[in-house]
Order: sequence, then structure tokens, then C-alpha cells
Amino acid sequence: MKIVIAPDSFKESLTALEVATAIETGFKRVFPEAEYVKLPMADGGEGTVQSLVDATQGKLIECEVTAPLGNKVKSFLGLSGDGKTAMIEMAAASGLHLVPPEKRNPLLTTSYGTGELIKQALDLGVEKIILGIGGSATNDGGVGMLQALGLQCLDSQGNQIPFGGAFLADIAQIDVRQLDSRLHKVHIEVACDVNNPLCGERGASAVFGPQKGATPEMVNQLDAALAHFANIAERDCGKQIQHKAGAGAAGGMGGGLLLLPNVQLKAGVQIVLDTLHLADYVKDADYVITGEGRMDAQSIMGKTPIGVARTAKRFNKPVIAIVGCLREDYNVVFDHGIDAVFPIIRQLGDLPDILKQGEQNLISAAQNVARVLALK
Amino acid sequence: MKIVIAPDSFKESLTALEVATAIETGFKRVFPEAEYVKLPMADGGEGTVQSLVDATQGKLIECEVTAPLGNKVKSFLGLSGDGKTAMIEMAAASGLHLVPPEKRNPLLTTSYGTGELIKQALDLGVEKIILGIGGSATNDGGVGMLQALGLQCLDSQGNQIPFGGAFLADIAQIDVRQLDSRLHKVHIEVACDVNNPLCGERGASAVFGPQKGATPEMVNQLDAALAHFANIAERDCGKQIQHKAGAGAAGGMGGGLLLLPNVQLKAGVQIVLDTLHLADYVKDADYVITGEGRMDAQSIMGKTPIGVARTAKRFNKPVIAIVGCLREDYNVVFDHGIDAVFPIIRQLGDLPDILKQGEQNLISAAQNVARVLALK
Repeated sequence: MKIVIAPDSFKESLTALEVATAIETGFKRVFPEAEYVKLPMADGGEGTVQSLVDATQGKLIECEVTAPLGNKVKSFLGLSGDGKTAMIEMAAASGLHLVPPEKRNPLLTTSYGTGELIKQALDLGVEKIILGIGGSATNDGGVGMLQALGLQCLDSQGNQIPFGGAFLADIAQIDVRQLDSRLHKVHIEVACDVNNPLCGERGASAVFGPQKGATPEMVNQLDAALAHFANIAERDCGKQIQHKAGAGAAGGMGGGLLLLPNVQLKAGVQIVLDTLHLADYVKDADYVITGEGRMDAQSIMGKTPIGVARTAKRFNKPVIAIVGCLREDYNVVFDHGIDAVFPIIRQLGDLPDILKQGEQNLISAAQNVARVLALK
Repeated sequence: MKIVIAPDSFKESLTALEVATAIETGFKRVFPEAEYVKLPMADGGEGTVQSLVDATQGKLIECEVTAPLGNKVKSFLGLSGDGKTAMIEMAAASGLHLVPPEKRNPLLTTSYGTGELIKQALDLGVEKIILGIGGSATNDGGVGMLQALGLQCLDSQGNQIPFGGAFLADIAQIDVRQLDSRLHKVHIEVACDVNNPLCGERGASAVFGPQKGATPEMVNQLDAALAHFANIAERDCGKQIQHKAGAGAAGGMGGGLLLLPNVQLKAGVQIVLDTLHLADYVKDADYVITGEGRMDAQSIMGKTPIGVARTAKRFNKPVIAIVGCLREDYNVVFDHGIDAVFPIIRQLGDLPDILKQGEQNLISAAQNVARVLALK
């Protein structure tokens, strides 16, 4: 019997590897002789770097980068076990959690730190960079990131514009000649789960600006600034980014990235599935076990378990999810490849206690799922 | 496919019939064509009358009886659908919950009301009475109950002794001649899950007295009174009750009942299993589903799911439990016939909310268990 265990992390409680190990522990109590494949998964969001590092026996590399408001902050990127792929979470350098709530102001925040992480990856000599762009504090169209990589975004005086979405309005000229030439030799896959365009009522500023601290006036100002940036980019770089699906992701980071060579925006979970070759492991499995911290109707929108389930169903494999909690509206997951789902909570308690019991509860739930399978 | 659903109630949330119906609902979403047998179970404790009434399409009969302190209180007994069996919970007439905490005093509390319920059952013309004796407020050796049924417990003046465990010390003579003669034509099965003797350090007063309000001095007084009662009973009724296993149950109620004809003390869950003929339903079932509000290591001590599981295992049937909550130490149930167990909580919340969600959570858990079974 072959069992593939491919869960996401349980946020605030267990990494994806810890989740997979707990599920394996529970199953082994019932099927000690089975073959187990543990694939810590992710969906391109928080925890993706850790999962990919764990899955490839790679390593985390710590470094210091520029935080959204210009101060320095400790950050990290991941390097795969074979040294060929770097994994970056934009939030680790430019995340909203790095800015105190009272200072959140997308007129001023920059994605420069994410560009520094990409530069670090280039220094490591990788062939591929996987970049998750969720959770950013920025609305600068990725201009800070581009500046860190050598792009010149100049105002009418010929000076680089300062950090922050507001100053995109001052761009008079974009000069790509000093862009890091190593970017031509690397492939960048961007985990991007929204298809919002750069500007307009479905654009970055209007949809995501408010949660980053933008007032309605700021939204209008930022939206106009992004449109101006897109126009100059089209004129000076020959690339049309304003209406591209996904350009509005992460404060326009999706659009800014499209000015680089060899960049592809893809669904986050698909990047992870492909990178970890899930299909290869699943095709001769007897059971596929997945999971995530919380399963609900939103889970079908690009979350890990559904991505795993869809891959498994290509080979007609049974898929069981084990989850931290399960919202009322979860039943729709049954239409997307999940055969059954079990929440792990065993008794009431306050959240910190429940999070602490996560591992034991997971082992218990996995054991009982395996015991039912053993009835066959 | 035949599925037998035989759960206990989820205390404070759902009756056993409601639990069984919710499990059936969840299973029917997956196996709409299966044959379902719902048997609301119990272990002789709270909820036993309701379950037996529900299981036999019987009825609850309300009546007024004497509460432990002599006041009148509304009570009930159950009558089976065929009219041949009455079901009584001692707690419904003589329960600790009927006495305000500040008035709890086993020197004074009486089991008289339980005798009145038995008399009601005799009036109904039943052949059998099932009597659960848990949760009593009394330590009167069942003398109140016996008095209600016509037994004369007389002091040295020839008067009936008053209500309360203290007055057993005053018994000079027991006269059975006026005992309700219908008792000779009825069989009484007493659900009794303890094997404590009437007196001594493992006796009723020492072990159960304190939780009924007895101080250490009162324990000694009550213990001596019970011993005196047992001695007179042996002399006047020719029955030795002092050292009988179970005589100490419910403040000596177990012992007092042994002075009646045709009385048998049995494990509560066994009485329910036998009464509902669980074995007959289980022997050709494909799956047996049981459950209870809380499963833990104590569950193997006479609780419903283990009784159901042991019966099912006589026929080598798979048994899955679905439970309200599951304590850390539950794993021992696997050694007693439970194949797998699933807690139903789907997300954290406060207790009233969780109890309100009980039915939906049960349906959900049952559905997912069935979905795994459907993978076969």
C-alpha cells in the first residue's frame, strides 16, 4: 500500500512538514508496513518557502533587506536541495505585517526589499525563482522591486523616484539598460491567484488598497499613479501591462514583474504541484491524504487541498482531507475531488490550547481515518 | 447494505433518538438505498427512559411524586410501546438535582418518590420494570421506596419511621405483610453499575454520602443506620443484603430493592441491550454506528458505545463511534470493540454554540465517515 501525504501547513500551529509527519504517525499505527510519501505543500502564500525547502531537503537563507517603509528588516529566501531553484515570499520583505497598523500608507511603502531577495537569488546562481506575492504592504506597481534590480525610474530631473506608490506619478522616463543582466538567464514563476488588472475599479488600488491603509482619496491617487506608470512602461519598454490579468496583484507587483524577461504568472498551488511533481507520486498511490488549517467554501479558490485533489482525480485516486477546522459551507469541496474531510478538534478549549494540541489531534484523526480504511 | 445506528444521547444537546436520526441523515446522503435501523440506546443513567420510550415507540407518563425532602415534584416514567415494560429513573423522583445544594442532607432525604413511581408502574399492569438508580439524593437504604410500596418499618412505638437515612437507626421491626402484592407478579431489573456493599468503607455512606451533602460525622451515623437496617431486615425478612455487591448503590437503594421479590441488579447498558434486542439487529448488519457525548477512558466502564461494540463484536461487525468530544485517554476503547471514533466539533466556539451546532456537526461527521466507507 502506498499513501501520499500532501497537506498545506496549519497556520499558527504546524508547518506542512509537521502536518505530514503527524498524519504519517497516525497512519503508521494502523498500516506500519505501508509506503509513505510526505510532500509538504503550499499554495504560494505564507509557508510556501518553508514547504518547498522541506519537500526538497533544501535550506532557508537569512538576509537583511529593505522593509516597506525603508528601514532594514531580517528576511529569508529558500534554496531547493539541488540548488537550482530559489523560493521567495514577497511578504517576507514587503509584507503588511512588517508595518505597524498606524503607519500603513501605500503612498509610501515600497517593494524594494523583494527586489533585493530576487537579487540574492541571482547571486546564488539558480535557474528558477518561485515568487509568491501575497500579503504585501505596497501599491507601487513593483517599481521598488524593479529599482533594486537596476531599473531606472526617473523623474523629470533625471533622478530615481523615491519609494512609494505616490511617486509613480512623477515618472518621466524608464530606462532598462542597467537592469541586472542575469535576469535573462533565469526563469521566474510568480504565484498569483488573482486576475485583477492593474488599474480601474477592479485594479490593485481599488480592491486591495484599503486593506493596506488607503483612504478613498488615496485609492484614486494610487490608481492614477499606476496608470501613469503603465503608460510610460508601454512607451519606454514596449510592454503593455495595464490590462493583463494578474497585473493588479500585490499592489501592481504582478504588472511590474511583467517588465522583466522570462516571467510567468501562474496559480500558486499549480507552481507547487509542478515543482514537487505531485502527479508522479500520486499516479500509483492507494490513498492521497491532504489537509489545511481551515477548510471552507473558499478552499476551492486555489487552496492546496483542492489542487492536490484535482491532481489525484486525474488518476482516479481517493482523497481524504484532515483539517484544523471546517466551516459550515465546506460541502462544495466534494465537487472538487475531496472524498471526505475530518476536522481534528477533539474537545473545546481556548485557541492557544487547541493550537498546542494540534499535533496530537492530527495524529488521532489520521489514526481513526486509517482505522476505517483498514475495515476494507 | 444494512446499517445499525445505536448511540447514547449527547447530554445537554441531543437525545439518543436525535443523535441516531442525525447520523442516519448523514449516512443517507452517501447511501440512500441502505437499510437503516435506529436504536436509541442508554446505559441506565439519565436519558434511559427517553431512549427506551423512543426505541419502542412507547410514551412518557407524567405524574406527581414525593421529592427527597418530602415536597411534591413533577416526575415521569416511561411505558414501552407494547405496554409490557415500565422504565423508571430514580433521579426523576429522588435525584440530587431536586434538592438545592444548601439543603442537601442525606440524614433527611427519602427515596419515597421512587416507590411511588414503581406503584404507578404496577397500576399500569406491566410485566417488567426497568429501574435506573443513578444520581440519587438519598442514603436511606431504599426504605422510603419500600414504605411507598407498603412495607412497614416500625420504631419501638410501632410507628412508621420518618423520611431520611438517620431514622433507619430507629427501626425496631420490619413487617412485609402489607407490601403491594402485585410485586410478586412483576419482574424488576435494576440498572446498577457499581458493586459497592451496603456498609463499611466501600459502602454507600462512605463512598457516595459526601457528594450528597454528608459530613464525616454524618457518614458514620448513616453507615451505622444502614447496618442496623440490614440486621433487622435479615431477622424479619430472612434476606441478607449487607454484603451483596451493588447493595450500596444509590444510598443503599440497591440493598433495599433486594427485599422485594423478583429483583435483579444488572449492568445498565446490558439491560438496555437486552431490552432492545440489539444482538438480533446487529447479527446481519454491515456496519454498526454508535456514539456518546464524551468518550474517554471511562467509556469502557459500562458506557453505551462499549456495550454496543461488544455485542457487535460477537458477530465480528465493524463498529464506528461518533462522539461529541474525545479525551486524550480514549485509545483504550480500541481494545473494547470500537474500530474508529470521530469527534464532531468542526470549529472552536463557546459551549452553548457548540451544543446548538450538535445536530449539524453530527450529520457532517456521519456523512464523512460514510464517504470513506463508500471508497471501498
